Amino acid sequence: MNYDHIFNQAIERLHAEGRYRVFIDILRNKGAYPNARCFAGHNGPKPITVWCSNDYLAMGQHPKVIEAMEQALHDVGAGSGGTRNIGGNTHYHVDLERELADLHGKDGALLFTSGYVSNDATLSTLAKILPGCVIFSDELNHASMIAGIRNSGAEKRVFRHNDVEHLEQLLAETDPALPKLIAFESVYSMEGDVAPIHAICDLAEKYNALTYIDEVHAVGMYGPRGGGITDRDEAAHRIDIIEGTLGKAFGVMGGYIAADTRIIDVIRSYAPGFIFTTSLSPVLVAGVLASVRHLKGSSVEREAQQASAAFLKASFANAGLPVMESTTHIVPLMVGDPVRAKKISDVLLAEYGVYVQPINYPTVPRGTERLRFTPGPAHTEAMMTELTAALVEIWQRLDLQLAA
Amino acid sequence: MNYDHIFNQAIERLHAEGRYRVFIDILRNKGAYPNARCFAGHNGPKPITVWCSNDYLAMGQHPKVIEAMEQALHDVGAGSGGTRNIGGNTHYHVDLERELADLHGKDGALLFTSGYVSNDATLSTLAKILPGCVIFSDELNHASMIAGIRNSGAEKRVFRHNDVEHLEQLLAETDPALPKLIAFESVYSMEGDVAPIHAICDLAEKYNALTYIDEVHAVGMYGPRGGGITDRDEAAHRIDIIEGTLGKAFGVMGGYIAADTRIIDVIRSYAPGFIFTTSLSPVLVAGVLASVRHLKGSSVEREAQQASAAFLKASFANAGLPVMESTTHIVPLMVGDPVRAKKISDVLLAEYGVYVQPINYPTVPRGTERLRFTPGPAHTEAMMTELTAALVEIWQRLDLQLAA
Repeated sequence: MNYDHIFNQAIERLHAEGRYRVFIDILRNKGAYPNARCFAGHNGPKPITVWCSNDYLAMGQHPKVIEAMEQALHDVGAGSGGTRNIGGNTHYHVDLERELADLHGKDGALLFTSGYVSNDATLSTLAKILPGCVIFSDELNHASMIAGIRNSGAEKRVFRHNDVEHLEQLLAETDPALPKLIAFESVYSMEGDVAPIHAICDLAEKYNALTYIDEVHAVGMYGPRGGGITDRDEAAHRIDIIEGTLGKAFGVMGGYIAADTRIIDVIRSYAPGFIFTTSLSPVLVAGVLASVRHLKGSSVEREAQQASAAFLKASFANAGLPVMESTTHIVPLMVGDPVRAKKISDVLLAEYGVYVQPINYPTVPRGTERLRFTPGPAHTEAMMTELTAALVEIWQRLDLQLAA
Repeated sequence: MNYDHIFNQAIERLHAEGRYRVFIDILRNKGAYPNARCFAGHNGPKPITVWCSNDYLAMGQHPKVIEAMEQALHDVGAGSGGTRNIGGNTHYHVDLERELADLHGKDGALLFTSGYVSNDATLSTLAKILPGCVIFSDELNHASMIAGIRNSGAEKRVFRHNDVEHLEQLLAETDPALPKLIAFESVYSMEGDVAPIHAICDLAEKYNALTYIDEVHAVGMYGPRGGGITDRDEAAHRIDIIEGTLGKAFGVMGGYIAADTRIIDVIRSYAPGFIFTTSLSPVLVAGVLASVRHLKGSSVEREAQQASAAFLKASFANAGLPVMESTTHIVPLMVGDPVRAKKISDVLLAEYGVYVQPINYPTVPRGTERLRFTPGPAHTEAMMTELTAALVEIWQRLDLQLAA
């Protein structure tokens, strides 16, 4: 048994497919986002513009958030010092769970260390509590949902992306006596499209299934109070469990679910991924509290983000760049090849100071490699016009097709 | 299918066994640890002393840590804004991984959002990369290691706690051609005992197995530079993968592994739990950098902790309290019943302002419920003498046995 040989082979496979990942080493400049410094190539800090951050509304730089974190840091210190059950349940955690429950119109909420852990822990535990549970899962669900479903050991039936007819067919084929759970996302982050939430809820009612929605790319950004697409579409009351993140539009870190207190109590009491882990630092929780409260009352950031996204989509389309269909703030540009996607990204960074990461398998299916832009309130029209010109120049240099 | 009924039953089972958990709602007072405020009972903040924190060395309150976090907060903002691959790889992350690799004498290190995720992601990925891998697991391994092993789908063979003969028997019975991984902890946190690391490494060499050690309850606290028991016992070079936490002795939040760069590269490239999650907030990372650097150069905290632990163990033993055998900083008191453990804990909090959480199943086996004290540098001898007197009074009140 030669372990080194096996490990080398695993890495070689990535190089051979052109999808070996090199992390770009950056520091953002607070107060000047999307500007940042890049350390790549060890030539010292070099200024860049970030186009692929999930700090969608730049709340990670918001004065209210920074101030709340600074205050908590001086009031209680750096870490929580324990699990939620053993010394790590601070008053900030209790307050934030109340705030998030209210955001989604639910009785309860539960914090996790990340959105990934929220999905993994909740889905795997839920399906174990419900004997014989069958999970119906959208084919483009996030890796963390797939992990949770797989780790539950429950039977999984995958429906075609956003295909309500296919979902109904699978539900109709399943024993009515078995517990059922439909797991899907609101905004699919690599496509930028949105689920038919009400139609899925209609089926859930018809077939007596529980519903679980991942709103990580929507919370803070949609709905009058930032409750996500379920807030915008007035569907939150029809969903049993809403899952969200604190690390994207809210600008900090962590994840959560909101649901009725009975479900919260079950997950809180049975999920190893919740029970056996140090709770979120109170410093982070304090920052999120300020962020959620601010975005409940302010739509300025949401409107500016939508305006930027619309401008960039139009700019790309007018230039003939292969911008993908998206009804949200996400602006993906299809490339279709991992080596070419990386090349375009490398040239953008080295020659234009533009940082956008190529998106490869396993994040997206092979052959659909892309660049994914997330313009926000702080990206100006001038920046977007320059970006479009840079892309057109690179497209021409690499002999890629531009639409007429 | 009545979902509410199933969920209610799940909660009822916990009440029936006396192990339904109520989170104590607290805020620590920075600069005055172990003093804190308790919000339980909604009578407003009430002063308490914390005896069960895993912020073992009070580094979560250390001025260097607080200052580093404040600086990062103002320099780069609250969150990282992305996964390590997509916008969330800051220069702080790169620096901390170098620092942790050096701490353990390894070529590389990799950060995760928690120690739980480090174990789950690394173990599950490693065993998938090694076809046919058999994992040898200590029976008292932490829930996160058990999750990682189960999620890997690999065959698991459980050896009796710290029992090297049993481990050898299982290794000898296993096909020599199969990849093998021995997974164990250095300090077992609910017992306070230590693994026979060199003896396990001898077996790993004899049977050509990889070794994986969880040092979460040891990093920062043992060894001349705080590299854990493998540092103290000069065994780090014999271990393939050392896993640690940033949320206990280092006082902040997060987890990591240290290993040779080939293994780091494999985990970094293949583990969904690493790839698909927002990276640690740079604020946390900056705090940990200061904490690790401080504890590399200072043994004052470690020595004070050991002195406190020795004093408390002696104080409990002299009073006839059932203190468990422990060779580390952890001081467990055996109760053996969940209802009684909770009762003692409730009286301590309500009447003595002492916060120590009862430890129930599934954290420890049923029938071994206990109270677990973690005295640190900031717990004075006067506090420990008072605590002992309080426990003796409660023991007598509840008609529990005291040793002669």
